Amino acid sequence: MFTDIFLPEVMGTAILILLGCGVVANVVLPKTGGFGGGTLLINFGWGLGVYAGVYVAYKSGAHLNPAVTLGLVAAGNSGLSFVEVVVYVVAQVLGAMLGATLAWAAYKKHFDDPEADEGSKLGVFSTMPTIHAPIWNVVTEVIGTFVLIFVILAFGKTPTEVGPLAVALLVVAIGASLGGPTGYAINPARDLGPRIMHALLPIPRKGSSGWHYAWVPVVAPIIGGVLGGFAGNAVGFV
Amino acid sequence: MFTDIFLPEVMGTAILILLGCGVVANVVLPKTGGFGGGTLLINFGWGLGVYAGVYVAYKSGAHLNPAVTLGLVAAGNSGLSFVEVVVYVVAQVLGAMLGATLAWAAYKKHFDDPEADEGSKLGVFSTMPTIHAPIWNVVTEVIGTFVLIFVILAFGKTPTEVGPLAVALLVVAIGASLGGPTGYAINPARDLGPRIMHALLPIPRKGSSGWHYAWVPVVAPIIGGVLGGFAGNAVGFV
Amino acid sequence: MFTDIFLPEVMGTAILILLGCGVVANVVLPKTGGFGGGTLLINFGWGLGVYAGVYVAYKSGAHLNPAVTLGLVAAGNSGLSFVEVVVYVVAQVLGAMLGATLAWAAYKKHFDDPEADEGSKLGVFSTMPTIHAPIWNVVTEVIGTFVLIFVILAFGKTPTEVGPLAVALLVVAIGASLGGPTGYAINPARDLGPRIMHALLPIPRKGSSGWHYAWVPVVAPIIGGVLGGFAGNAVGFV
Amino acid sequence: MFTDIFLPEVMGTAILILLGCGVVANVVLPKTGGFGGGTLLINFGWGLGVYAGVYVAYKSGAHLNPAVTLGLVAAGNSGLSFVEVVVYVVAQVLGAMLGATLAWAAYKKHFDDPEADEGSKLGVFSTMPTIHAPIWNVVTEVIGTFVLIFVILAFGKTPTEVGPLAVALLVVAIGASLGGPTGYAINPARDLGPRIMHALLPIPRKGSSGWHYAWVPVVAPIIGGVLGGFAGNAVGFV
Repeated sequence: MFTDIFLPEVMGTAILILLGCGVVANVVLPKTGGFGGGTLLINFGWGLGVYAGVYVAYKSGAHLNPAVTLGLVAAGNSGLSFVEVVVYVVAQVLGAMLGATLAWAAYKKHFDDPEADEGSKLGVFSTMPTIHAPIWNVVTEVIGTFVLIFVILAFGKTPTEVGPLAVALLVVAIGASLGGPTGYAINPARDLGPRIMHALLPIPRKGSSGWHYAWVPVVAPIIGGVLGGFAGNAVGFV
Repeated sequence: MFTDIFLPEVMGTAILILLGCGVVANVVLPKTGGFGGGTLLINFGWGLGVYAGVYVAYKSGAHLNPAVTLGLVAAGNSGLSFVEVVVYVVAQVLGAMLGATLAWAAYKKHFDDPEADEGSKLGVFSTMPTIHAPIWNVVTEVIGTFVLIFVILAFGKTPTEVGPLAVALLVVAIGASLGGPTGYAINPARDLGPRIMHALLPIPRKGSSGWHYAWVPVVAPIIGGVLGGFAGNAVGFV
Repeated sequence: MFTDIFLPEVMGTAILILLGCGVVANVVLPKTGGFGGGTLLINFGWGLGVYAGVYVAYKSGAHLNPAVTLGLVAAGNSGLSFVEVVVYVVAQVLGAMLGATLAWAAYKKHFDDPEADEGSKLGVFSTMPTIHAPIWNVVTEVIGTFVLIFVILAFGKTPTEVGPLAVALLVVAIGASLGGPTGYAINPARDLGPRIMHALLPIPRKGSSGWHYAWVPVVAPIIGGVLGGFAGNAVGFV
Repeated sequence: MFTDIFLPEVMGTAILILLGCGVVANVVLPKTGGFGGGTLLINFGWGLGVYAGVYVAYKSGAHLNPAVTLGLVAAGNSGLSFVEVVVYVVAQVLGAMLGATLAWAAYKKHFDDPEADEGSKLGVFSTMPTIHAPIWNVVTEVIGTFVLIFVILAFGKTPTEVGPLAVALLVVAIGASLGGPTGYAINPARDLGPRIMHALLPIPRKGSSGWHYAWVPVVAPIIGGVLGGFAGNAVGFV
């Protein structure tokens, strides 16, 4: 279980979060080469972070996301035991913490820059809504994660030879189209792991870690993932 | 006919329109993360919306567009009965209505924002020309939809293993190159379904649903699709 | 020769130029949806124009470009007779004229707009250097076209299943990286055909068709293509 | 060894650097068509430069980067002798020098433009940090190159048919996500070869070649590549 699930999920999620948090740092922290680089750049950064992470985590099936793991369980043919599910989720959160730490190290001097404001620094690690409205923020994240799981389940019905690019482009799509209100966590580990590291790392003038919102990007993606799994099963994708 | 045509077309068109209307909302509604994100972002959002929708609608051949359905009929080897064509089209319009409703839900608080103007709100749902000139708007939509159907018919002659990415990139191309004057409906259901929902949904200060223009993105794509089907047949693509 | 070379090359080049000139129109003509959309949008528009055109012209091998035809001849295994080469080139120029006419029709009202300036209108059809310096403009176009032909010849040595996407991405690359000084004609038909149509079409206040520069994007791509063909042969790509 | 390693590596690295330095020139030099084109344009230019270079260097396995060569050695199954490694590295540096010279030729008149400042001119050739902090600049380059080698080694475990597009997208990802602080050399030849040419070429008002920083993009990518190779071996990618 260590080499087949734990290690690949830690590594894959770390690569995903390193590249994902990294692209946000590139766009929002002052003095970087990509400062102000725009939404499509961020969308491709996260999509290709998934792309790289999926290659790395081939042994475990590359869930990289508790909502994927639980969505596959809900879809009914995951074959995973309760303990295995726990190992997946723990590994994903730990991998996300590792990836966020590496992204912080890569952008260390830009986090230390006195021009970097608190909101940007937290934004590198975790999502936050542009309009705070918990119920509707949940709706947005549920819809986004539903699309992620539902379409992933449909992938199996149209064989291609593009490999991890398929899910990478789906994540670009969800970010471009559904990321506007909440920053598309669509993955509890993606949000919680980096938020923990935001609280722990020695970042000067870092401000709040936004714990009041932290439940939304954990709970809503799980709801969306499970609904997506049930729906995929109901319509015959699995 | 329900599980082989109706359901897949509803689901696939809903995913397409959710992601397509979603990316416009992200770019044009105030306070979103992607506000002002630009044309290429919108083009990729719609292209990847098609991408995701095609996977989901694999059972029905993923038309997702009455112009595609009628173009295939015009091309002469669709094998579809009149009733089946009607089921395709009805499912596409219903799916588009569902997708637009989900996009509205995902961006609910941004539609409610007093800073959101009427034109932007309608623009999330339906297309409108930047210069109102019905005949030339029809010409633009006919050309765009002709390219869509004509090239889709040619796909079969060059087998690849990229799957739904092929048509996704074609839609990015049409949006980037021919979307300037009319916003590239190139799909009657894509425009009519969301426009109906714009009229029905409880959106504050929403203004006109632009019904005076609604016939163009219905009629012109059908003309373009049918011409594309005939042409594809004439030159031996089918 | 008509159905195997002439017709496919006319159709494919027309699609390429329709989408290529179209994306420039979208970005440079006033009041379009894509106005000011940027360089990457233009690069993707042209790259995906090639993408669509290659599918359409599968029967003729999809040269779509006299520099490709002559580059393949120079590479030594084209198997083409002199007459066939002439048919390719004539079809490409005619197809480019047709495509430019369709792009003009799609953007008709934006060409008529009094706010559209002469340079933008010509820029939709044909290339022009940002710094006029014929010798160095030739150098830039020779290098760009060399890369196009040389890498296309190398494609055969690394089989993939991405189909026309391979050359589409190469064209995106050349545009992004080598398009800055001259607007990357890299194709005599792409420049000459639309320039002829600029001269012929009833565009109000259209100004000069820039004939003083017209020889550069014809001569230089041919030189680059032939050099690329020789080089590809010399290093064993064919 | 000449035709199997030296020549392909020279050609492939030259194409990579021509397109890579070219896209920077397009974005940063005044009066180019792509001036101010943004970070994503640069990321795609470099990624697709790798794409084209890999096709051209198929015979040598397309390392194009001493960090890749040494990373494969560290991974333990390269089968390369010491002399072969030296030939790879020498060819890569020479190829980079050739590519940079071609990029300079393509943009000659823009380098000569009195409006072009010293920093932009050097930036076309070589990387420089946005915040000069050698230790942290090394950290950033080590992380970026680690990701490059580690994920490349993982590619073999998930067969696809996308060919050189796989590594091209990985390079886009690293640029988008980790390029902010140092401009992502992640390749000693990519930085050293062009820097030598910056010093040698007759560029007016070119200023310093930045030799004080030159060791970072040489040493750090080698460290990152070797660590990536060891890690890939340790976790069973090879």
